[in-house]
Amino acid sequence: MKLSARNQLSGTVKSINKGEAIANVVLDVAGQRLVASITVEAVDDLGLSEGAPVSAIIKASDVIIATDG
Amino acid sequence: MKLSARNQLSGTVKSINKGEAIANVVLDVAGQRLVASITVEAVDDLGLSEGAPVSAIIKASDVIIATDG
Amino acid sequence: MKLSARNQLSGTVKSINKGEAIANVVLDVAGQRLVASITVEAVDDLGLSEGAPVSAIIKASDVIIATDG
Amino acid sequence: MKLSARNQLSGTVKSINKGEAIANVVLDVAGQRLVASITVEAVDDLGLSEGAPVSAIIKASDVIIATDG
Amino acid sequence: MKLSARNQLSGTVKSINKGEAIANVVLDVAGQRLVASITVEAVDDLGLSEGAPVSAIIKASDVIIATDG
Amino acid sequence: MKLSARNQLSGTVKSINKGEAIANVVLDVAGQRLVASITVEAVDDLGLSEGAPVSAIIKASDVIIATDG
Repeated sequence: MKLSARNQLSGTVKSINKGEAIANVVLDVAGQRLVASITVEAVDDLGLSEGAPVSAIIKASDVIIATDG
Repeated sequence: MKLSARNQLSGTVKSINKGEAIANVVLDVAGQRLVASITVEAVDDLGLSEGAPVSAIIKASDVIIATDG
Repeated sequence: MKLSARNQLSGTVKSINKGEAIANVVLDVAGQRLVASITVEAVDDLGLSEGAPVSAIIKASDVIIATDG
Repeated sequence: MKLSARNQLSGTVKSINKGEAIANVVLDVAGQRLVASITVEAVDDLGLSEGAPVSAIIKASDVIIATDG
Repeated sequence: MKLSARNQLSGTVKSINKGEAIANVVLDVAGQRLVASITVEAVDDLGLSEGAPVSAIIKASDVIIATDG
Repeated sequence: MKLSARNQLSGTVKSINKGEAIANVVLDVAGQRLVASITVEAVDDLGLSEGAPVSAIIKASDVIIATDG
């Protein structure tokens, strides 16, 4: 599968904090911490668990740029 | 300023492709390519140019997770 | 590849309106019209053209519900 | 009311999984399953329940395109 | 029509900057400037022009909070 | 810090409804009610509580426009 989403970062699942509807999944992406809020259904469907290799996919229109200025 | 957005990655501007309303800004984040689609107004307002140090800010609810399965 | 995004609709490309940075891609999904705004880079990278079979992928957190009330 | 959002799909509520803050609402849209993550407040405000006719509204900039390639 | 989106702010169109695919529409919302990036198709479909009364609709999951800290 | 996000509205925290993973934070922005769904981690990290002065930050691509027509 090939995606129009321009940003696809490889990483590993570090922890999962499940609520009833949504779970926050913490990833390690090249030493940087990344958090994804996804449905609990998706966590179960993908069989996510600590240590699992995953990709973080982010549409270019969802990226904000910040400067120090 | 402190943000609720959980994901803030440091990088550098590599190139800017400006349209009339929207510009695609390509970043180098720890050796990985990241693209942000922002308004041309924001590019000008932040004074973005090649080589500029920036952060990419991404809300956790905008991150999709993918597995190979 | 398996995605956490809950919504994946099969369709066909009907037309592509390219700007400089962003393109609007019109899809036919089971007889319904769907529009996706993606980068021109993605259109080229995926080799999209009229008639191409594609999927529209939408994160559950990006869906708004409306009622008539 | 007329919306700039290009994608408005008619469907029916199939199930609602309520957490404390967010609920996942599963829709049937022309035989296809669609999930929307919305606030619990919105579920109550709209009086959503199984079988209710609704529309799923999705901004074009939130649609990712995928190909098999 | 009633929407699950929690944020609906009344305002007026101040200016429209049209590209080929996307237009940036500047609104005045209670004296505050608000910018919406929407498709050019939507600008035409809604017949937007300077001075037109409109609402800005924003899903709660798209709002980031910032503090000075 | 300067942000590409075009919309930054000053307000005050009115209430916080915490789930396990996500919290809905209600703001008063110039007399208007605004809701932000953010991670519980962010609520804690920013030390949000009733009465706290904050900004609501919204990317232009996340704003939908509605007319009465």
